[in-house]
Amino acid sequence: MKFTACKAQKLLSLSILTHDASMENPLHFLAAARQCEINELQRMLRTSSLVRALAELIHALQKERGLSSILLASEGLMGRDALHMQRQTSDQHMATLRTALSQLDVDSLQGGQGARLCSRIAYVLQGLDALAGLRHSVSAFGASVHTSTQAYIHLIADLLNVVFEAADSATYPSISRLLVAMFHFMQGKELAGQERATGAATFSAGVSYTDSQQHWLHLIEAQERCMQVFADCAPEALVQAWQRCSATGSDVTAVERLRRIGCTALDGAQLPRELSPLWFEACTNVMDGMHHIESLLTQALVRDCEVQLDLAQTGLARLPSTMPAAHPQGDAVPEFFTMRSAMPAENHWAPPLQMSVLSVVQEQSQRLQAMRNELDTVRQALTERKTLERAKGLLMTHQKLSESEAHKLLRQTAMSQNRRIIDVAEAVLSMADLLAKPIA
Amino acid sequence: MKFTACKAQKLLSLSILTHDASMENPLHFLAAARQCEINELQRMLRTSSLVRALAELIHALQKERGLSSILLASEGLMGRDALHMQRQTSDQHMATLRTALSQLDVDSLQGGQGARLCSRIAYVLQGLDALAGLRHSVSAFGASVHTSTQAYIHLIADLLNVVFEAADSATYPSISRLLVAMFHFMQGKELAGQERATGAATFSAGVSYTDSQQHWLHLIEAQERCMQVFADCAPEALVQAWQRCSATGSDVTAVERLRRIGCTALDGAQLPRELSPLWFEACTNVMDGMHHIESLLTQALVRDCEVQLDLAQTGLARLPSTMPAAHPQGDAVPEFFTMRSAMPAENHWAPPLQMSVLSVVQEQSQRLQAMRNELDTVRQALTERKTLERAKGLLMTHQKLSESEAHKLLRQTAMSQNRRIIDVAEAVLSMADLLAKPIA
Repeated sequence: MKFTACKAQKLLSLSILTHDASMENPLHFLAAARQCEINELQRMLRTSSLVRALAELIHALQKERGLSSILLASEGLMGRDALHMQRQTSDQHMATLRTALSQLDVDSLQGGQGARLCSRIAYVLQGLDALAGLRHSVSAFGASVHTSTQAYIHLIADLLNVVFEAADSATYPSISRLLVAMFHFMQGKELAGQERATGAATFSAGVSYTDSQQHWLHLIEAQERCMQVFADCAPEALVQAWQRCSATGSDVTAVERLRRIGCTALDGAQLPRELSPLWFEACTNVMDGMHHIESLLTQALVRDCEVQLDLAQTGLARLPSTMPAAHPQGDAVPEFFTMRSAMPAENHWAPPLQMSVLSVVQEQSQRLQAMRNELDTVRQALTERKTLERAKGLLMTHQKLSESEAHKLLRQTAMSQNRRIIDVAEAVLSMADLLAKPIA
Repeated sequence: MKFTACKAQKLLSLSILTHDASMENPLHFLAAARQCEINELQRMLRTSSLVRALAELIHALQKERGLSSILLASEGLMGRDALHMQRQTSDQHMATLRTALSQLDVDSLQGGQGARLCSRIAYVLQGLDALAGLRHSVSAFGASVHTSTQAYIHLIADLLNVVFEAADSATYPSISRLLVAMFHFMQGKELAGQERATGAATFSAGVSYTDSQQHWLHLIEAQERCMQVFADCAPEALVQAWQRCSATGSDVTAVERLRRIGCTALDGAQLPRELSPLWFEACTNVMDGMHHIESLLTQALVRDCEVQLDLAQTGLARLPSTMPAAHPQGDAVPEFFTMRSAMPAENHWAPPLQMSVLSVVQEQSQRLQAMRNELDTVRQALTERKTLERAKGLLMTHQKLSESEAHKLLRQTAMSQNRRIIDVAEAVLSMADLLAKPIA
C-alpha cells in the first residue's frame, strides 16, 4: 500500500490546480482523463511485479511437484534431499509473492475486475496455507502420486487464475497484449509440466495404455494452442527467442523422440522403464528454457509500463494551462459545431503548445477510441478461456458437478469425439436451454 | 467530489480492521473484493444522477432544436417567445448537469474507461460553452435551418456519448443492463427527434423528394432497432409501459398516418404544407411520452444501485471475522485440495455465520464468475455501436474524412445497397487491409 488512493488524489489535485481548476472547465476533465491513465499505468506496474512473483513461484512449485512424485513413486528411495531443497526455494518465492501482494494497493482496485482479482488472491492464499499440510502428507507417504500431483495442479491453476485476472483487467492495448502473451505462455508451460508428469508415469509403469496416451496427446495439442496465442501477441524478438529455444537443442530433440515412442505404442505394449529419468530430465531442461522466456516477458512488461507512464505524464504536463478566450465570431455558428475534422493519428501525446483546447479534446478522444478498438482485438484471445469457464459453470450448476469433474467431462467428450475442447464448450453453451431442464 | 477516494479508503480500512487485518490473510482480500464492489456501486449511483441530468438536458435541447428551426424557417414570424422560454428551461437543466458533473468524483474513475468518460465530458463542456454562440447566431438569423439543426444534433450526440461510456463502464450485470436499455432508448428518442425535423422540413417544403424520403425511412428503421435493444434489456414492467405508450393514443396514430403520407409520395409529388404543424405536434407528444419512460428507467436504475449496495454492505458485514484454526488432519492431503465442489447458486450475499472461509471464498469466486458471464451477454448490445465507431475511424484515417463525412458515407452506402448500416460497417472492417493501401 505504498501508493495509496490518497496520494493519488493529492497528485491529481496538484496537477489540476496548475490548470484552470473550475469544475465546469473542459480542462479539468481533460486532465482527469490523463490522470485516469496514469493511475492505471501505476497499477499495471505493481501488477507486473505480482505477475513476475507468480511466474517464479509457479516454476518452483512445478519442480516441487515433480520431485514429490519421484519421492512417492520410489517409496522414499529417490529425491528426498532434492525435494527438501526445492521446498526451501518455493518458500523463498512464496515470501516474494506475499511481499508483492502487500504492495498491490487493493484500494486502487475497482468493480467486478478488482473484486475478481482479490477473490482469486484470497483463493491462492488459502492454497498456500494448505501447502504445509500437503507437504507433510507427501513426506509421510499419506498421499498417492496421483493425489499429490493433482493437489499441485490445483494450486498452480489457482496461481494462474490470478495472472488471468490481471491480464483481463488491463486497459492499455500494449500492456494487455503482453499480459495475454504472458498468461498463455505460463499456461503452456504448466501444460508442459503436466505432460512431463504424464510421460514420466507412463515410462515408469513400463506399459502404454490408450487412455493415458490420449491424455498425453491432448496436453501436447493444448500446449501448442497456448503457444500460438503467445506467438500472436508477444513482441517479435521474444517470439524469435522462443522459436530458437523450441526448435533446436538436444533436449527438444529428446522430448520429441520420447513423445513419439510414448504416443505411438500400441495399447498394452511394453515401454523401457529406463526412459523415465531421461524423459524427466529433457522436459525439465526445456521448462527451464521456457522460464527464461517468461523472465524476458516480465521485463518487457515492466519496460512497457514505464515507457507509457513517462509518455502519459509528459502528456499531462503539456496540457494547455488555461482556456483560450472565445473568438468573437459575429453571427456565425461557432467553430465547435462546424469544425469536426479527422486528426492525424500519430504522436498523440505531444500536442504543440499552441494547439487549441478543442483540438486536444478531439485528439484525446480519438486516441482513447483507437485504444479501445485495439484492446477489443487483443482481448479476443481471452474469450476462449471465458467460454470454457462458462461451459464448466453451466455443467457445475445443472449437472451438480465439481469444477474438476466438469472440466474432465468436457475434456473426455473432446477426446472421444476428436474435437477441440473449446468446440465442445461452445456446443455445451448453445445447448444451455436443454441443460436447464432436469434430465428425465 | 463529496465522496472522495480518501473517504473510501478510510471506510475500507475500518471495515478491514474489524477483521483479521494481516496482509497475508485470505480474509483481507475477501473483504477487499467486497469493498471493490461497494465502491463500484457507489460510483454507479453517482453515474445514475449524471444519466438522469443528461436525459433531462437532451429532452430540453431537442425542444430547443425544434423551436429554433421553426423560428428560422418562418423567418422570425413563429416561435420566438416559445424559444426564449425553452432556452431558459435548457439553462436550468444545464445547471443541474454541471452539478452532477461536479459530484462525479473523478478520482474514483480509472483506466481507459474512466479516461474515455472524462474525455467525453470535456467534449460536452466545450459544446455547452459554444451553445451561447449558436443561440446568438439563430436569433440573428446567421444560421440556416439545416446548420442549426446539425449543430444541435452534434451537441446531443456528444451528450449521448457520455451515456454510452457510462453504460460501457458498468460491471454489475443488472446495472449494465439498465444502462444499455437507457442508452438505446435515449438514442431511439433522439432519432425520433431527427425524424420530427426531417418530416417537418418535408411537409413545410410542400414537396416530396426520394433522397429525404430515404433518410426518413432510415431514421424509422434505426429507431426500431434501438427500441428492440431497449425491449431486450429493460425490466418487463417498463417494456410494457413503453408498448402501451407506443401502440395506442391519437398521437401515435397521427404519426403513423403522416409517415405513410410522407414516405410513400412519389419523387417530386406535392404535399399539403398544413400537415407540418400537425406532424410536429404529434411527434412532440410522442417524445414527451418517451421522456416519461426515460424517467421511469432512471428511477429503476437508482433503485437497483441502492438495493445492490445494501446487499453488498450486508455481505461485507457478514464475513467471518477470523480465520478458523486449521483442523489437524494427520497425514491426509488437506481438505483445500480435495474439496472443490460446486456451491449453490442462490442467496450469495448471506452466507451462514458458521460457513468456513474456504466456502466463502468459493461462493464469492463463483458469484463473480457468474456476474462476468452475465455481463458479457448484456454488453453484446454495445458491440454494434463499437463496430460502427471502428468502421468510421477506419474511413476517417484512410480516406481522410471527417467524422460526419464518414458516417454519411456509411449511411448512404447502406441506403443505396438496401443494407443495414451495421452490415456495411462490418464489411468495411473486413476490408481493412484493402483500405490500408493508398487508392491508386
